[in-house]
Amino acid sequence: MTRATLLTITSPTGTPEAGDPGFVVADFDAPQVRITDLAVTRGDGVFETIAVINGHPQALEPHLARLAHSAELLDLPKPALDVWREAVRAGVADYLTRNGAGPAEDELFAKLIYTRGVEGAGAPSGWLFVDLGEDFRQARLGIKVVVLDRGLRHDVAETSPWLLAGAKTLSYAVNRAAQREAARRGADDVLFVSSDGYALEGPTSNVVTLTDGVVRTPNTDQGILAGTTQAAVFDFFESRGLRTEFAPLTLDEVVSADAIWLVSSVRQAAPVTHLDGREYPVDAALTAELNAYLLARTE
Amino acid sequence: MTRATLLTITSPTGTPEAGDPGFVVADFDAPQVRITDLAVTRGDGVFETIAVINGHPQALEPHLARLAHSAELLDLPKPALDVWREAVRAGVADYLTRNGAGPAEDELFAKLIYTRGVEGAGAPSGWLFVDLGEDFRQARLGIKVVVLDRGLRHDVAETSPWLLAGAKTLSYAVNRAAQREAARRGADDVLFVSSDGYALEGPTSNVVTLTDGVVRTPNTDQGILAGTTQAAVFDFFESRGLRTEFAPLTLDEVVSADAIWLVSSVRQAAPVTHLDGREYPVDAALTAELNAYLLARTE
Repeated sequence: MTRATLLTITSPTGTPEAGDPGFVVADFDAPQVRITDLAVTRGDGVFETIAVINGHPQALEPHLARLAHSAELLDLPKPALDVWREAVRAGVADYLTRNGAGPAEDELFAKLIYTRGVEGAGAPSGWLFVDLGEDFRQARLGIKVVVLDRGLRHDVAETSPWLLAGAKTLSYAVNRAAQREAARRGADDVLFVSSDGYALEGPTSNVVTLTDGVVRTPNTDQGILAGTTQAAVFDFFESRGLRTEFAPLTLDEVVSADAIWLVSSVRQAAPVTHLDGREYPVDAALTAELNAYLLARTE
Repeated sequence: MTRATLLTITSPTGTPEAGDPGFVVADFDAPQVRITDLAVTRGDGVFETIAVINGHPQALEPHLARLAHSAELLDLPKPALDVWREAVRAGVADYLTRNGAGPAEDELFAKLIYTRGVEGAGAPSGWLFVDLGEDFRQARLGIKVVVLDRGLRHDVAETSPWLLAGAKTLSYAVNRAAQREAARRGADDVLFVSSDGYALEGPTSNVVTLTDGVVRTPNTDQGILAGTTQAAVFDFFESRGLRTEFAPLTLDEVVSADAIWLVSSVRQAAPVTHLDGREYPVDAALTAELNAYLLARTE
């Protein structure tokens, strides 16, 4: 059994003193969070999950930039990205020292958690842990997806920023409830649609479609997280000569696509075999190449 | 300085062994929560905050019933309410033993936190803490409120239960963001309105209006928390011979009310002096009587 590495980020927002990296190794199996940390009582914080493949944290800079962007949407102090960046590297190194490299197919992840801190203390909290990920090989062959209404209009990030659409917050109870609803309907995952009929994203993924040789994803001014993996998926298709574009996509446009993927940092690209029961052929070779490309990333 | 009491609920869902109350006193100042508790990583749990006045936890049974209802909406195991009930009483007793009764105007609160537990463990977590509340005497004289769109239709609890409208979850980041938006606009609190124009509730309160001698609050099938304090507010007005009713209330109907209150468990009844800048006269004597009634509750 592997042992996860946990770091407490002691300087989540500021430059530490000389000689202090701004983080310390903590005991993953012991409680580290106060009950009055606003992460616990209010889901008041942001996070990132980064795939670590062959020792490389993937898309590290885009993930750090998104952490800072989410923090800004929540009016949190700017995270000290230099500290967080080194913490990711140190956490991965500690995990590998502790556990060895493991089998070649082992995929790790690093989770960064940045919260508003203990209520009344006025200082944010930060943690980072590195652990062995789930085995997603089956999902990379195909997943069944259901469409669920997210209840919000597609333009809500502009009209109502307090709804935090587009921020990766610790308040993920609705995303988890949507995934349970999918399971109840015999599916593996969810595609959220806006109340006015636009395809948005999955609870923890972006949607990418292929239609008549053009690769599309919904543009991110609709309260959608800018996907770090989605960007790499576009690179892959562009390298194969396909056109890629961000566009408002109606649900109908997604349904009528030739192929659909849900893409995310740790599961990588999962081809959709069924969307609300409608079947889609999967180009297994293409998806395998796409995932090989994604897993080979060293940055 | 007072010292809060923290209990870890060791049997949040099951009957403990004979002689074991199902909870233990824990160190409030020490970390008690694992970083992988889903409360931290996903805001995946529910809570209740109960006012404790003169040693009496107010509306204890309605709060326990609402905890169970919220848990059901989140597909959490049924909480063992006998254990939670005794934990509230024991927590209050421990706090008072530790700190003495304090000045007569001291108002305490008990917060119950029930989560899906450590990821992968398959067992929920529970905690309860008792602490000194904020001083809300100023708010009970008057608050300024702004109207913010919650983005969802009023009927979303029926159409889209996975959005968890009406559950008191730990995923409260949006409620906190709305309160920061209110502060930016020079106000103290928020009245949420549905995307189709119905007045809903505050981030941590219910709205009660008085119009032509009739007291109203929005009916709770609109994804609104059934208010434990709101129920007592209705009792108060009924005891004075006023008619009370639950009704769908449009924002226009609230705006044209003679008087408006935001009511909640710890702050009790806060009269609205301004709604989006429009001024409302406060019947200070009536509100003082209402709060005296609410604070005198022993159940």
